[in-house]
Amino acid sequence: MSEQKLRTMAISVGDLNGIGIEIALRAHEEISSMVRPLYCISEEMLSQACEKLDISRPENMEISPVGENFEIIPSKINKKSGAYAYHSFMKAIKLCEAKVADAVITLPIHKEAWYKADLSYTGHTDLMREYFDKEAIMMLGCKKMYVALFTEHIPLKDVPAKITKEALYRFLVDFSREIKTKKIAVLGLNPHAGDGGVIGDEDKKIKKVIKKVNYALGEKRFVGPFVPDTAFTKPMRKKYKTYVAMYHDQGLIPLKALYFEDSINLSLNLPIIRTSVDHGTAFDIAYKDKKPSIKSYINAVKAAVKAAQYRDEKLSL
Amino acid sequence: MSEQKLRTMAISVGDLNGIGIEIALRAHEEISSMVRPLYCISEEMLSQACEKLDISRPENMEISPVGENFEIIPSKINKKSGAYAYHSFMKAIKLCEAKVADAVITLPIHKEAWYKADLSYTGHTDLMREYFDKEAIMMLGCKKMYVALFTEHIPLKDVPAKITKEALYRFLVDFSREIKTKKIAVLGLNPHAGDGGVIGDEDKKIKKVIKKVNYALGEKRFVGPFVPDTAFTKPMRKKYKTYVAMYHDQGLIPLKALYFEDSINLSLNLPIIRTSVDHGTAFDIAYKDKKPSIKSYINAVKAAVKAAQYRDEKLSL
Repeated sequence: MSEQKLRTMAISVGDLNGIGIEIALRAHEEISSMVRPLYCISEEMLSQACEKLDISRPENMEISPVGENFEIIPSKINKKSGAYAYHSFMKAIKLCEAKVADAVITLPIHKEAWYKADLSYTGHTDLMREYFDKEAIMMLGCKKMYVALFTEHIPLKDVPAKITKEALYRFLVDFSREIKTKKIAVLGLNPHAGDGGVIGDEDKKIKKVIKKVNYALGEKRFVGPFVPDTAFTKPMRKKYKTYVAMYHDQGLIPLKALYFEDSINLSLNLPIIRTSVDHGTAFDIAYKDKKPSIKSYINAVKAAVKAAQYRDEKLSL
Repeated sequence: MSEQKLRTMAISVGDLNGIGIEIALRAHEEISSMVRPLYCISEEMLSQACEKLDISRPENMEISPVGENFEIIPSKINKKSGAYAYHSFMKAIKLCEAKVADAVITLPIHKEAWYKADLSYTGHTDLMREYFDKEAIMMLGCKKMYVALFTEHIPLKDVPAKITKEALYRFLVDFSREIKTKKIAVLGLNPHAGDGGVIGDEDKKIKKVIKKVNYALGEKRFVGPFVPDTAFTKPMRKKYKTYVAMYHDQGLIPLKALYFEDSINLSLNLPIIRTSVDHGTAFDIAYKDKKPSIKSYINAVKAAVKAAQYRDEKLSL
């Protein structure tokens, strides 16, 4: 009875005016062999989406209804769709908290639609940070390469001041607890990682923190700070699979240049597990029968299964 | 007599304690079929390097002697080696100014050795900027992708303030004159290119400047500002081969992640043509018979030939 072993995954359907629900429907059969998906959507909204997409509703789709129904307007940024995405996500979180589900898998929301719905979060991670009052860590990547972001959706000019010894120390210690990887590459901040202090002084600070963290951990798990522009060359990527980036684009530019459609987004250091696709709502192709790639979604499901396993192993220690 | 048509290239030999001279020697035969190389090095230093490398001195190597001879100490950062590299570079520049050579091709210098020799430039480009009193533009890349850097070797925290309308306008206009490419992608500064002003305000400024420059040029040559982390995905790279990056690592992280050994460095917007390898002195493998890759050097020679051709075409208009 291997079916009994399938983990339940709460699926947050994202902005229904975007491509998320199409991806969920097209991937349903495939992911059903790996997990028991539980869709946070009402029967009405699901039927409406199926109709608009001209896809027949799979019979074995389990739902956990949420929110106020509304009319889907493909590719439209609107308040109702934003609010619905929020309620779907919150329901998914609560299913995890209640241990009904093992993890949350999120399809993309639209930030402007959230803004219109008076939701001021910059995204899923930000919302969870506030909801759980915990320093969530955002990690993106795929099997070949993962990048954890020390800072996320903030202006570039605010990044250097965020690199304090305390904050980076805390981040690295938290991060080390969340993943198994033995060697983690930490990037410097400045060109040439500061060239010995000639170009900015933050890299020296980063170096000291790495030393201190490794000492506290009793092993040299963190290595660096690496010169950013040579950290992602082929020889380096053979040595390191996991990176800590000081800012959003430092980590995501190389990740997306190399492994665009494969990547997923994981939220670490939280009471629940959450994985996500790493793309947006793609309004330009929504409801147009363009068959969006389901690769990132499938990978998000696989990563959630792996993360749930890892958590259970840790719990059983 | 096709030999008569070969262009003369002044070769700046770089830091002789590093891998540059080995690359020059190993590539000599190959590049001699494309250009007439003129090495800025004394007979004594050349013989010394050959001996230490156990490579016999090619007979047909033409030299233009410079500087004070010294003893090569493999992998050593020192003043004399730094000063010699400087004199070799200056000689190469002067050969171009005197129209003896068509372009300068530089092998890597070591910045700390320059520092020890009381040379305060952050590199070749910086020196030329001062020498010619012109806003040199640094562009790196290979056939598949080129990146021009709006800012270079400055601390990340100083980047945002450098993005003024005047400076960016001037940069883009200068750049447009130097290359043939019809469509040039300009990157934004902040995550998601500012998300409509929610994350920093520099991207709005960049947008206005692009509009103004295109208007002045009478064509939409510059496109953007693009969201940095999705600007280098495969579909984007099919559309754009030339990028303008706001800061060093924004352009060089993806370039080196994708095309490490192929890339070269070009200095644009100057009275002379200069191309360079895009790697450093690699002291860790210097004089150790490790046969460093000559790919970047060969590409630098090819790019110099192409740039000289382009300049002549422009001059003949």
